[in-house]
Amino acid sequence: MVFKDKIKLAFQDAQVRICAALEAEDGLGKFSVEEWNHDSGGGGITRVIQDGQVLEKGGVNFSAVEGEIPGFMKNHVSAESTHFFATGISIVLHPHSPLIPIIHMNVRYFETNGGDAWFGGGIDLTPIYVVKEDAQQFHLALKNVCDQFDTEFYPAQKKWADDYFFNQHRNETRGVGGIFYDYLKPADGKFSHDALMNYALELTKTFVQVYVPLMAKYKNESFSAQQKEWQLMRRGRYVEFNLVYDRGTRFGLETRGRIESILMSLPEYASWKYNFAPTDNSPEKDTLDMLKKDINWLDLI
Amino acid sequence: MVFKDKIKLAFQDAQVRICAALEAEDGLGKFSVEEWNHDSGGGGITRVIQDGQVLEKGGVNFSAVEGEIPGFMKNHVSAESTHFFATGISIVLHPHSPLIPIIHMNVRYFETNGGDAWFGGGIDLTPIYVVKEDAQQFHLALKNVCDQFDTEFYPAQKKWADDYFFNQHRNETRGVGGIFYDYLKPADGKFSHDALMNYALELTKTFVQVYVPLMAKYKNESFSAQQKEWQLMRRGRYVEFNLVYDRGTRFGLETRGRIESILMSLPEYASWKYNFAPTDNSPEKDTLDMLKKDINWLDLI
Repeated sequence: MVFKDKIKLAFQDAQVRICAALEAEDGLGKFSVEEWNHDSGGGGITRVIQDGQVLEKGGVNFSAVEGEIPGFMKNHVSAESTHFFATGISIVLHPHSPLIPIIHMNVRYFETNGGDAWFGGGIDLTPIYVVKEDAQQFHLALKNVCDQFDTEFYPAQKKWADDYFFNQHRNETRGVGGIFYDYLKPADGKFSHDALMNYALELTKTFVQVYVPLMAKYKNESFSAQQKEWQLMRRGRYVEFNLVYDRGTRFGLETRGRIESILMSLPEYASWKYNFAPTDNSPEKDTLDMLKKDINWLDLI
Repeated sequence: MVFKDKIKLAFQDAQVRICAALEAEDGLGKFSVEEWNHDSGGGGITRVIQDGQVLEKGGVNFSAVEGEIPGFMKNHVSAESTHFFATGISIVLHPHSPLIPIIHMNVRYFETNGGDAWFGGGIDLTPIYVVKEDAQQFHLALKNVCDQFDTEFYPAQKKWADDYFFNQHRNETRGVGGIFYDYLKPADGKFSHDALMNYALELTKTFVQVYVPLMAKYKNESFSAQQKEWQLMRRGRYVEFNLVYDRGTRFGLETRGRIESILMSLPEYASWKYNFAPTDNSPEKDTLDMLKKDINWLDLI
């Protein structure tokens, strides 16, 4: 089997496995399934959960698309490359409870008919209220999976996540970060195609291992109307990031992908209040103060 | 008095007049007032109403900013121009009731030390439920004010609004359109600075004349939870337009303007539901079917 078919199948399996784990912890919601085709070739399977017990709205997208290389990508590929193949999984989950963080994960593989090939991906956590222990556990889990492949992965990819998941116009990180990587090439010699595919697949497992326990930990805790309002405002920032900066979203909107699959990342409800500022010494203010780059979450406690 | 001081004062007066008219019809809400300064020179006055009786959230921004001409504007100005002055009013109003449309208005004037000068602006109406008679009255009022200056204004600016207030990724207009114009230069000979300033000021009056009656017409009508949900979803489309396409918003975010003034255009609450489609023959479907370019609203009934 050629590599692109192998990774495509592996991602498709991972999608099924992730949805099953999330449904089991949710206990009520079921993922809907839509298959779609892209104009230029290939397509995808979008799985969305709405109105679950824990998850208000969430999507686990799989896609494997091919076509001509768009103009703005030509700097990244060899002169002989005319066609690309890209496959990936994209996840965003918005729980009902403001005590459970929003989470995002993406892993992807790109290759051309001219011999280019690279991997990209990332996971980041967006708590409505930052709980230091949870952020530490999250980063520890990511570091552990990174270290199995290369001890340089975690520090480099953690920094990249801080820079990427950042609302520049507010000078505010989206959440407590995580890892982000792109243009990771098997051709660089250090890693084979299979090794980098395994790294991506390990990340999909880590995603489940870190998020399902967070759902379980907080799903039965009650929360106040004030906490819910704060959640809606933080979701507003999430919408700002996705529509203004997120590469996948902007790429999807510009290339006229399937809109409902691209924008499944937006929450069911969000809010913007003019000039809102949390009061000093409030849990909301404590969280805002931690939405900064370059915090070492591993050592925080 | 030099022209830029004259128009700045006229816009400042218009801001006060508009807020007074809206407060009077709202009957409860009062505009807050914040003055701010821009890093590069000048500043503005932001007036925002929240939790009024009719208006849930709305802003009437005045600004008069100066500074060095940013790189991306250099194509539009003469080689001698190094500094700009820009003044304008920007309005977005989000009423509580889904029966009252969202409205937007902007008028602005730009000049440089190299002798460049132009006007821009627009008004557009975004009904949650399109009422043909209201759309017709709205366009008639705009045509009337346009025709006082030039009979070519309305057809040209109506078309520009259709093209501009358009969510390309959804192939859907934001609402029933209105008018939009830019780079309208007094130097073209046909109009003096004063004439184009008067056009802008007439538009601010027309704005009040068309919108206050819409508030009055629907503010005492009750609405259902289903209508409210539809409103939140339509507001989601408004957020998409403003964050993805709106020139003023993108410009403000990129040049690090005062964020709360730029994003006052976002609604207090908005919603995104995956794969939502209104049922056939519903009022929601009727509205969707009218969110198209090139409808002649004047003749519609």
